[in-house]
Amino acid sequence: MEEKRTIDIATAKMLEKAKKDNVETAWDRAEKMRPQCGFGETGVCCRICNMGPCRIDLVGDGPKKGICGADADVIVARNLIRMIAAGAAAHSDHGRDIAHTLHMAAEGSDYDVKEPEKLKEIAKYFGVKTEGKDIKEIAKKVAEKALEDFGRYKGLVAYPKRAVEQRQKIWKENNVWPRSIDREIVQIMHQTHMGVDADYINLIQQGVRAALGDGWGGSMIATDISDVLFGVPKPIETEVNLGVLEKDMVNIVVHGHEPTLSDMIVQASQDKELLEKAKEVGAKGINLVGMCCTGNEVVMRHGTKMVGNFLQQEAAIVTGAVDAMIVDVQCIMPSLSYVASCYHTKLITTSPKAKVPGAIHIEFDEEHAYEIAKKIIMVGIENYKNRIPEKVNIPEEKSKAVVGFSVETILNALGGSVKPLVDAIVAGDIKGAAGLVGCNNPKTKHNYYHVELAKELIKNDVLVVLTGCAAYACGAEGLLTLEAKELCGPGLKKVCELLKIPPVLHMGSCVDCSRILILLNELAKYLKTDISDLPVAGAAPEWMSEKAVSIGTYFVASGVYTILGVCPPVLGSKNVTKLLTEDVEKIYGGKFAVETDPHKAAQLIMDHIETKRKALGV
Amino acid sequence: MEEKRTIDIATAKMLEKAKKDNVETAWDRAEKMRPQCGFGETGVCCRICNMGPCRIDLVGDGPKKGICGADADVIVARNLIRMIAAGAAAHSDHGRDIAHTLHMAAEGSDYDVKEPEKLKEIAKYFGVKTEGKDIKEIAKKVAEKALEDFGRYKGLVAYPKRAVEQRQKIWKENNVWPRSIDREIVQIMHQTHMGVDADYINLIQQGVRAALGDGWGGSMIATDISDVLFGVPKPIETEVNLGVLEKDMVNIVVHGHEPTLSDMIVQASQDKELLEKAKEVGAKGINLVGMCCTGNEVVMRHGTKMVGNFLQQEAAIVTGAVDAMIVDVQCIMPSLSYVASCYHTKLITTSPKAKVPGAIHIEFDEEHAYEIAKKIIMVGIENYKNRIPEKVNIPEEKSKAVVGFSVETILNALGGSVKPLVDAIVAGDIKGAAGLVGCNNPKTKHNYYHVELAKELIKNDVLVVLTGCAAYACGAEGLLTLEAKELCGPGLKKVCELLKIPPVLHMGSCVDCSRILILLNELAKYLKTDISDLPVAGAAPEWMSEKAVSIGTYFVASGVYTILGVCPPVLGSKNVTKLLTEDVEKIYGGKFAVETDPHKAAQLIMDHIETKRKALGV
Repeated sequence: MEEKRTIDIATAKMLEKAKKDNVETAWDRAEKMRPQCGFGETGVCCRICNMGPCRIDLVGDGPKKGICGADADVIVARNLIRMIAAGAAAHSDHGRDIAHTLHMAAEGSDYDVKEPEKLKEIAKYFGVKTEGKDIKEIAKKVAEKALEDFGRYKGLVAYPKRAVEQRQKIWKENNVWPRSIDREIVQIMHQTHMGVDADYINLIQQGVRAALGDGWGGSMIATDISDVLFGVPKPIETEVNLGVLEKDMVNIVVHGHEPTLSDMIVQASQDKELLEKAKEVGAKGINLVGMCCTGNEVVMRHGTKMVGNFLQQEAAIVTGAVDAMIVDVQCIMPSLSYVASCYHTKLITTSPKAKVPGAIHIEFDEEHAYEIAKKIIMVGIENYKNRIPEKVNIPEEKSKAVVGFSVETILNALGGSVKPLVDAIVAGDIKGAAGLVGCNNPKTKHNYYHVELAKELIKNDVLVVLTGCAAYACGAEGLLTLEAKELCGPGLKKVCELLKIPPVLHMGSCVDCSRILILLNELAKYLKTDISDLPVAGAAPEWMSEKAVSIGTYFVASGVYTILGVCPPVLGSKNVTKLLTEDVEKIYGGKFAVETDPHKAAQLIMDHIETKRKALGV
Repeated sequence: MEEKRTIDIATAKMLEKAKKDNVETAWDRAEKMRPQCGFGETGVCCRICNMGPCRIDLVGDGPKKGICGADADVIVARNLIRMIAAGAAAHSDHGRDIAHTLHMAAEGSDYDVKEPEKLKEIAKYFGVKTEGKDIKEIAKKVAEKALEDFGRYKGLVAYPKRAVEQRQKIWKENNVWPRSIDREIVQIMHQTHMGVDADYINLIQQGVRAALGDGWGGSMIATDISDVLFGVPKPIETEVNLGVLEKDMVNIVVHGHEPTLSDMIVQASQDKELLEKAKEVGAKGINLVGMCCTGNEVVMRHGTKMVGNFLQQEAAIVTGAVDAMIVDVQCIMPSLSYVASCYHTKLITTSPKAKVPGAIHIEFDEEHAYEIAKKIIMVGIENYKNRIPEKVNIPEEKSKAVVGFSVETILNALGGSVKPLVDAIVAGDIKGAAGLVGCNNPKTKHNYYHVELAKELIKNDVLVVLTGCAAYACGAEGLLTLEAKELCGPGLKKVCELLKIPPVLHMGSCVDCSRILILLNELAKYLKTDISDLPVAGAAPEWMSEKAVSIGTYFVASGVYTILGVCPPVLGSKNVTKLLTEDVEKIYGGKFAVETDPHKAAQLIMDHIETKRKALGV
């Protein structure tokens, strides 16, 4: 059965163990949930007011309109953009918190500006003067300007100005340049309220505006300021998969999305006092490993081993070897406290926004960051002795990987300009590039689509970049190594050898999809063209979160052809489906496609790249 | 059949006519929708990520947890606070737009500061100095300060400081004082995202914080600045119900929620040029009437007749006598364009946030407000000739009413202080007061609960205040008249005679629930006690909109016992239900109750008032 659930042997072993240990996992719950509600699946269930719930009967002679008169188009569009609102809100809040941390760093805290050059670079986009200014002063100003973009009441969000001019023009003409990051989210909630907007095109347009406030706003701010505070990622070696847990060490997993606490925990995990404590309890040391996007944040800057992605979070605990799992926000299954209770694992929540009954709550507070980080690690150390030996079983599977390909790093590898990359594309050595992003979803076999699609693309000389859960999937499969060049077509292989890079580049966490935007923008700028003219595409093979809906939307609105491996809840409206998969292309040059087969998806991407290559005359 | 649907004869007649004309209404669609989805009704349907939809089986042996592990408590709490997010967003956007209009007025536009005294009063709360300052200058500063409260990144929202100190202390201690109006809404969307908060208490707490940002933020700003721009309401006579439409005049209905355009339309409807045009097309004049909360906004300041509430919007068009219906935002049924197409009515949308396929879109723009208002009225005038005489049937029912009881007016009637009101309460002439607010809902007979509850309360010497749809319901029943004193108990009758006020006071639109907060706060201040100690209660008898969820929540968090006549989707979680109907009282002094019978609800309110009276020693 487990082979149906995941392609990853380590995970399959843990699912077998879970069954033996009588522990329920997401896959079990997904099976129990089937068949899932068809109204919800097709987006025609409306719970927006208390006259309802309403639902549209797509096949029989039941209702074709909700009680208020909303039809399938309206209901589907409203539900969809509320997903964007939540996804953009998650990234917005993340970006705001990081900007706040920069503000604190400027005023003196456990944090400091690690990358003054990057700070000066982004100061430019915020219109902050840097000449003759002290770094702390610049940091404060930049933090304030960034924070203003979340709630400004006049003017517009600053970062979209970084896009090539053609793209800016499209956004202006279509009135989708966000006014403030939060305001567009709030407007979605208003516009989808009972009896406000009944025009699906207008609704989707507002969804686009909020999503751009995410991609070219909240997320991009999160990425940039994280780099300023914690370092611009550079290539670094690591290992990926459940096998990175250590039998004889205190295993601490940092899980969630934000670097603010986890970066401090990385530092604290090397604290001599704590290492001493670990030895006192009989452990050989502290083995700090990362999960999901918190893991992506720390591995790119410290090489912290990557224990697993979204659907591996329960599996990690099932090893019986996790002494503490520390979580911040997003994608943390509420089931973790239940799974932890089946073993000795301590689950520690740290965000005031994300508590879990049954977990220990140690609230993080930037003002006492290091102290709290140490306190949290101590929980893991003290819990080491509580391991239940007969329940410990760490699978041996792990793979080597090179991660940390920030745009700065890629440009550096290329000698400071995208020219060599463009030359390789023109020469046909590289046909184009594709970004693989997003989650796992029990609706599709764990990691299968990510890996198959990446392999198929590199085999056909398409360079692949990754963020989020996709990075773990490809990492566990060994695709984030220089050796993976052997799986490439001859052109891409040559380029990988020349530049000494893997054919699949790890660009970070899910907010770091903004790095992909910047990379595309650099290419477009060099070619004096729009992003939509590039031979590139995106895919969210195994997505499940509302953030992915926002990410997909800002990619499409930035001109990128984007394939979804799992169908979003839109099929109940032919009009909305057509708008997203056809009509939007006329406006933004990008559009969505849904394809559940990775090989067919690869073909779609290659066809798209070929079309764009022809149009560019290469 | 229609008697089952509404207690209002005019509406019943129009429902009969609709049937004859083969026009479908909300009631028909509600019938077709039955039985409604039990998962949605109890709040245990989760569509928050694309692993789902999930639902909890409350009675059988189906799933007790979603795929991520979220249980009924988490799912119900998340769904509920997303309703608060949308409701607060609707009011936030409304308040923001009004503040923006004030800003434009300060810089010179078709708008002007009508109430400099009120402007100076609210300047105080925003910390804006007024001495020696020009009114325009004050207006600009106040507008800016108000706009800042929607998106501030440091400090806190200003208006909660107006509450009595005891109340402020509760909000501070429970960490629910909103930081910015928008931010709390955005945080709800983040906190309810997949894998963030799994603690129903923490979720509801964030719901409270966003709701307070509505009641003591967005809504209160909307009310105050509307008063500054359009006038503080004073008692004014009007008429209520469908019978206010005129056979021989151009009938124009303004419908929705905001005063900005509608106030301009009132002015334009008296424009000599337009009156001339109306005569040219054979009409005796222009009959501008108001619907829903736009109607409440204009009637309180101009006496504009009140044609009907939420469930009468289709019925108004069914008269065949509405030449144009002009809508802005909120509670506008998408069905209107369909109903209008069955008659000659032109439906005109005016907000960029609210378009309706099939309607004429004439976008409102504050910079050309009067010009656009005239253009819109002209559509109605020109359409007069298209009336289909055999389809015209205006019911004769209408009632006289006195409306316009702003807090300022009430204090004025009392001689400048709440003392006479408190004295009357202490003497037992008035036992206490109750606020009836909110919508209509086909789940309950139209207007029945509003009217029955109001009658029962005044019979028992409980003073009633109203906003929103409740005002139309009681108005049509003649309760907003001095003569309604005859329906009162002896004490309240005496007070009504003395003060020359109706026993049921119309306080405005749904954002004007903030007026009720201020009135309660004045009473508490005078009594040197907290709002929760007052012998008062609230009720949302026929609510349906997400705004009502936010309103109910901020009343409860302000210390008010609040009865819902229609059950919200929470029964799937015993814990959330208990929290809202019991436990919150320990924190906030207010709590929710659900009671579908208006007579039982009246008893609950009277019992509550009695308890509070005893505690106060009166």
